[in-house]
Amino acid sequence: MQTHIDSLSRLTANLYNKDFLLTWDHTEDEIRAVLLVAECLKELHRAGASYRVFDTGLAISIFRDHSTRTRFSFASAANALGLGLADLDEVKSQIAHGETVRETANMISFLAEAIGIRDDMFIGEGNRYMREVSAAVQEGFDQGVLHRRPAVVNLQCDVDHPTQSLADLLHLRNHFGGLEELRGKKIAMTWAYSPSYGKPLSVPQGIIGLMTRFGMNVTLAYPEGYDLLPDVAGLARRQAGASGGSFAVTHSMEEAFAGADVVYPKSWAPFHVMEKRTDLLKHGDKQGLADLEQQCLKENAWHKQWECDDKKMRMTASGKALYMHCLPADISGVSCAQGEVSADVFERYRIPTYKQAGFKPFVISALIFLTRIPNPVEVLSRLISRETPRSL
Amino acid sequence: MQTHIDSLSRLTANLYNKDFLLTWDHTEDEIRAVLLVAECLKELHRAGASYRVFDTGLAISIFRDHSTRTRFSFASAANALGLGLADLDEVKSQIAHGETVRETANMISFLAEAIGIRDDMFIGEGNRYMREVSAAVQEGFDQGVLHRRPAVVNLQCDVDHPTQSLADLLHLRNHFGGLEELRGKKIAMTWAYSPSYGKPLSVPQGIIGLMTRFGMNVTLAYPEGYDLLPDVAGLARRQAGASGGSFAVTHSMEEAFAGADVVYPKSWAPFHVMEKRTDLLKHGDKQGLADLEQQCLKENAWHKQWECDDKKMRMTASGKALYMHCLPADISGVSCAQGEVSADVFERYRIPTYKQAGFKPFVISALIFLTRIPNPVEVLSRLISRETPRSL
Amino acid sequence: MQTHIDSLSRLTANLYNKDFLLTWDHTEDEIRAVLLVAECLKELHRAGASYRVFDTGLAISIFRDHSTRTRFSFASAANALGLGLADLDEVKSQIAHGETVRETANMISFLAEAIGIRDDMFIGEGNRYMREVSAAVQEGFDQGVLHRRPAVVNLQCDVDHPTQSLADLLHLRNHFGGLEELRGKKIAMTWAYSPSYGKPLSVPQGIIGLMTRFGMNVTLAYPEGYDLLPDVAGLARRQAGASGGSFAVTHSMEEAFAGADVVYPKSWAPFHVMEKRTDLLKHGDKQGLADLEQQCLKENAWHKQWECDDKKMRMTASGKALYMHCLPADISGVSCAQGEVSADVFERYRIPTYKQAGFKPFVISALIFLTRIPNPVEVLSRLISRETPRSL
Repeated sequence: MQTHIDSLSRLTANLYNKDFLLTWDHTEDEIRAVLLVAECLKELHRAGASYRVFDTGLAISIFRDHSTRTRFSFASAANALGLGLADLDEVKSQIAHGETVRETANMISFLAEAIGIRDDMFIGEGNRYMREVSAAVQEGFDQGVLHRRPAVVNLQCDVDHPTQSLADLLHLRNHFGGLEELRGKKIAMTWAYSPSYGKPLSVPQGIIGLMTRFGMNVTLAYPEGYDLLPDVAGLARRQAGASGGSFAVTHSMEEAFAGADVVYPKSWAPFHVMEKRTDLLKHGDKQGLADLEQQCLKENAWHKQWECDDKKMRMTASGKALYMHCLPADISGVSCAQGEVSADVFERYRIPTYKQAGFKPFVISALIFLTRIPNPVEVLSRLISRETPRSL
Repeated sequence: MQTHIDSLSRLTANLYNKDFLLTWDHTEDEIRAVLLVAECLKELHRAGASYRVFDTGLAISIFRDHSTRTRFSFASAANALGLGLADLDEVKSQIAHGETVRETANMISFLAEAIGIRDDMFIGEGNRYMREVSAAVQEGFDQGVLHRRPAVVNLQCDVDHPTQSLADLLHLRNHFGGLEELRGKKIAMTWAYSPSYGKPLSVPQGIIGLMTRFGMNVTLAYPEGYDLLPDVAGLARRQAGASGGSFAVTHSMEEAFAGADVVYPKSWAPFHVMEKRTDLLKHGDKQGLADLEQQCLKENAWHKQWECDDKKMRMTASGKALYMHCLPADISGVSCAQGEVSADVFERYRIPTYKQAGFKPFVISALIFLTRIPNPVEVLSRLISRETPRSL
Repeated sequence: MQTHIDSLSRLTANLYNKDFLLTWDHTEDEIRAVLLVAECLKELHRAGASYRVFDTGLAISIFRDHSTRTRFSFASAANALGLGLADLDEVKSQIAHGETVRETANMISFLAEAIGIRDDMFIGEGNRYMREVSAAVQEGFDQGVLHRRPAVVNLQCDVDHPTQSLADLLHLRNHFGGLEELRGKKIAMTWAYSPSYGKPLSVPQGIIGLMTRFGMNVTLAYPEGYDLLPDVAGLARRQAGASGGSFAVTHSMEEAFAGADVVYPKSWAPFHVMEKRTDLLKHGDKQGLADLEQQCLKENAWHKQWECDDKKMRMTASGKALYMHCLPADISGVSCAQGEVSADVFERYRIPTYKQAGFKPFVISALIFLTRIPNPVEVLSRLISRETPRSL
């Protein structure tokens, strides 16, 4: 781990008293710092050592959508750092009274270190809400309402899913033996068929928004009409140019798979559908929503051939591309009649996808660590040298 | 903080193994002890020091009404003291089986240090329920069922809201520079219009039941018919007499505001309406409840002029009274069309109301500390001298 | 406590990295180890000492049925050991997406030490589900997905309720002054009338499956048709033979009570009804379920005389049998018009039943301790000799 500490100390990264909302809000050095800290914390845990840095303090979660793995990753990360978890269940709160976000954000934060938020249902809403919370706690801190400034951590919004994409990047780094090894590798971020509706765009956006920074050749594939947010696609293109990688869009899953070193087949809804849905939801138009769902499922069904099966896997580099998924995948014949991936391909890569998911608690720990600890190199060194066993 | 410790050691206050249900159950010395401990704990937190006193142990919350700030204040207080939070969600429990309160109270308390309860919906019920829980854990402790006697802490009942009124008293103390400075100051606890229905009476009752003990001139104002519980009003009158302050009731908001040093405009339902509502609820009379709500909202609407606006604020002492609210306030044009306070007045005092709320976690910490630690002066001294940083 | 440690060190018990799903999965030495550790932890808590062994780590609970005392026992046990509690609320998770148990089990377990599960509603389901979770985390651990192997702890299934029966055994041990004193004592595990429907079979099954191992004379009594799972009855018979005790079935409550040293009158549903109910539930047959419920309640009502009243208590050994119940009991005239026990008998034994329940948090602590600590004798000795006070 000393190598990691040395690397960390050479970076120009200062996340203290900041938030983590989009990977592209942060410098490459900051991204590298997150990865190094996450690796160290994971290594400490693997060795049975504690990486608790807080004696007390709260980590608050706000989930505006269902979640299992992110919920438990956040809970695990908070607990491992020594923070107590407090979930803001908006149903049980007084928020329905018309209370402002600005006020709620301060009211829950008097003894908080971190606020993790998932809000991925509505285009134009989730990230905006996180920035509102961020501005509120910043004002509270500046005005002396809060003794400390809790970090807002994006646990998935309408734009990005940074804890996922950073875990994915760590998985790639470990798989290929280093970040430098990713240069020139082809990753196919492709749409895949699912019998469900309204899946967020944040995972594919997060992937193209992050992997294009590390010299990868990123191919985004989807059926015509299933566009992502144009801003993010533009960003990916610019970043790829700057990093020496490339960014291409195709409407053929086969083309994307051809020669790929990594494939990430995953369903999502077209952003214009998500926008329409946001509108209908705001107006409480139930019939409109039901109609939209039916129409979308019908359109989805035209693309059932967008399945990651063994035949397509054989088109990848040496037929052995790394299959990735943020989970849960829609597995044909297992979780649905036909879905994103065939059962044999998924089963072959099942354990690797579990390992991919296993980076997430440590990524979240690293984000809280770096945003809340003013001297991370020093504290991390102390954690490593003290070697406190996690159990008596 | 040494001054606070010295003051604390001169008080005759023993809250150990007791509950905290109503401020007027406790001597003035005990109230002063709570304030001093809360100030010390807040100061420790501000300085980045830990005030953890428990290695393990549970703090149990029972919320029979919605809550954000009290829920998070209790969670924060428990966590900062080192206790784990366990919420008794009565929906998910077996309590529907007809289990007695006496039994449930013991079953949840085997490793508990504190039980925080909010039960403010029904006149005659909330405080009674808390006393039932208290008697049950006392019996359990006496009979050897429980190794320790958890403290029952009132997080708002039908009669009082002590964690609010004590936080408010701390806010006043800090604003005016000392408890002694409150003598002779005029506080206007006044009803205000709100387009909602059935707001509890515990805040105004808590304020008149506490501030009359510190020599303040307390004016209670409300439209005819919006009486508080007669017992509490009687208590306020007697306490004001004893403390050298005064207690007056008026039916004019302007009269209350005239020359006031502090104004606390807040809506509530008349207690006879709350009583009727309790009856209807018990009988499951949905039509009766709907009719009562309509009638009340109509009656409320006759008093829309009971709004804290700039014009009324100008009538206060030097036009600069401290505006207080337990939050969330019904702000005209912000959280409702017309409400308790105009947007300009609220915005001017917004940060102070956030600071007012910020005392609550430390008040709750102090209540648990004093009821569960047999030697508070000694332990507080130790906390201050050890200066354990809250993070590594 | 040194005697307990000495006894523990003489046992051949190795629960490390295992689960605790059925008492009869484990050797008598392992059962004795659980009791000894539970006693020591209870004694430490009584003395105000901490038995925290984990610095951080999660204890996950999955409740597929309502629960108060087991929920709080698990929360208390986890907290006392230093683990943070994380509840998997299947409603708020993505599990509805068709995610496999195998996957979910791994996704929640990256930093977990224990998974407590209650799943007692369906015959043939609960224990099967627990074994599925167990196999999943074992695979995850073997494949390097999980750094540690969380223990699965049965908090009540369709077959057994080990944390209850072990707490009951500890209660008996304390009441009679030692496990050896149980030899030859008669315990009457009898059905009792309740105006409710569908109560699980796991408590009576757990009792006959455990007490027959300690030389007790176990009489199981129930009205014709209210059979338990045949496998468990067979097991009880074999174990009684091996331990020098006995196992008898009767259809008369009076016969069971006659000369009994201990009585455990408690309602349950016949297993064939539970099986039919499981079927109907799987097919979503609401009318069938309603009909079944009506029929069962009608049949139950034929057996209202199966009440533990003073007259029956007088038939027990010296009229002074120990009355036991897992709580909450259906008490005639208190929680229902007529139920399992008369109010006078229950009130006489109320405090002892609370004490009986009070063993549960320590039993759960002991199960997590023994399954997660590789060197329990050494760590327990260290806990006892360090005597860390639980509060400052």
